[in-house]
Amino acid sequence: MISRSQLIGQIKQKKSFLCVGLDTDITRIPEFLKSYPDPIFEFNKRIIDATQDLCVSYKPNAAFYESRGVKGLQSLISTWQYLPKDTLNIIDAKRGDIGNTSDMYAKAFFDEDASGMSFDAITITPYMGNDSVTPYLKYDGKWIILLALTSSVGSKDFQYLETEDGHLYETVIKKANTWAGADKLMFVVGATKSTEFTDIRKHAPDNFLLVPGVGAQGGSLEDVCQYGMTKDCGLLVNSSRGIIYASNGEDFADAARAEALKLQQQMQVELEKAGVI
Amino acid sequence: MISRSQLIGQIKQKKSFLCVGLDTDITRIPEFLKSYPDPIFEFNKRIIDATQDLCVSYKPNAAFYESRGVKGLQSLISTWQYLPKDTLNIIDAKRGDIGNTSDMYAKAFFDEDASGMSFDAITITPYMGNDSVTPYLKYDGKWIILLALTSSVGSKDFQYLETEDGHLYETVIKKANTWAGADKLMFVVGATKSTEFTDIRKHAPDNFLLVPGVGAQGGSLEDVCQYGMTKDCGLLVNSSRGIIYASNGEDFADAARAEALKLQQQMQVELEKAGVI
Repeated sequence: MISRSQLIGQIKQKKSFLCVGLDTDITRIPEFLKSYPDPIFEFNKRIIDATQDLCVSYKPNAAFYESRGVKGLQSLISTWQYLPKDTLNIIDAKRGDIGNTSDMYAKAFFDEDASGMSFDAITITPYMGNDSVTPYLKYDGKWIILLALTSSVGSKDFQYLETEDGHLYETVIKKANTWAGADKLMFVVGATKSTEFTDIRKHAPDNFLLVPGVGAQGGSLEDVCQYGMTKDCGLLVNSSRGIIYASNGEDFADAARAEALKLQQQMQVELEKAGVI
Repeated sequence: MISRSQLIGQIKQKKSFLCVGLDTDITRIPEFLKSYPDPIFEFNKRIIDATQDLCVSYKPNAAFYESRGVKGLQSLISTWQYLPKDTLNIIDAKRGDIGNTSDMYAKAFFDEDASGMSFDAITITPYMGNDSVTPYLKYDGKWIILLALTSSVGSKDFQYLETEDGHLYETVIKKANTWAGADKLMFVVGATKSTEFTDIRKHAPDNFLLVPGVGAQGGSLEDVCQYGMTKDCGLLVNSSRGIIYASNGEDFADAARAEALKLQQQMQVELEKAGVI
């Protein structure tokens, strides 16, 4: 559990707003790990050890674990247990369903007694409306991170549609901000659209934005910060593949650390430029 | 694996287009089952035994299994193994993510070697566009069931928004029908909106529609059929709680059968009325 003020405190202390995405794929991890009973967990453990002073958040992507059935879920649970308690630990699950089903997903990811895991935050998809969001708000101190504008090609299919109330992604942000405050609700905003950050900040002046797509996918950290940073930082920038697969040799953890450090140093410059630190 | 023509064949043979939703909740199943090693599976097994001649489809809701962690996933895998091979077995997972993540969800639910399960169909949420759909199409003979118009209160938040191209749910249907044919793609359309079926059939004349919300949630089977049925039937009507929790005593399976039979008999009337059988 990590509150907004604790998150901001972590950002200032670590001079970083980096989120490390744990999209751990058995086909991409170093060979030598495969002799361990749980290679995926061994990989994540070493990545966490190598990066935790440089980042404020971790984000396992549920799909990568689910693709391996029971053993994948066990790797996810072990990873959750190992995550530092002062980072914002996000499960990237992109769930979205009616109320009684959302209650069950909330148990799956927020209730350790029920499922063995209790992340601090979950990503949610907005198509089904408030039923998909409000059941999670019952959990004290937990966060919802709602998809608004994503960074993939498919974002053009629906998210940019003009509605009576602006683009669909703007309508989502405005509506969702009537359901919860900036102490419980963040939005996913893809970094390949840095010019849109100006519009988004009109509707979400205080919400933290989780930003994928910097680096490998072509987004510029400088642009994101210029248009998206607030006095409290207000950004979590995610990198997954660029960090965790920096090397696939025995030096993978050192290589991951080097990439994370590079991003942390750029982030420090941006935080100083904006007067956050 | 069940093709469109096999599905239509099953509908004609069983005189039913019923889908039984396995939203199995440990707090709602009969006490006596709790002494079994896997009470959730024992419940599902008896429901399947009692209903399989009356329905053409089963739909476990992933959230209910995920909420119980590893043991829940084991119940889901056992349930999948037990499902008849001639019914359309749908995992109600409502996933939706970028391409490389959708590939992983496809493995989770369509690739037995990877995860222990291989459902015939998966429900998908459209917000992230074609990346969320196309990765599943690589699996021969599998189906995507895309959310269009849902039956919960939250459907009003975004699905009815007017876009340049009709309501959002209409835009979703039109666009998705350019990605796949009616032999691979179905839509979820809530039964509480039977008058909208006429509009939906303009954009989706041939697609099967998966219809939740009949019965407990207030939708009328007769209305759904009047506006939504095609010459091939074109409908799968789901009932979950109305069937599986018809009784919570030792007679629960008989009570479930009685409810399923009632629906099957109404469906037979509708199929005859429309000249499908």
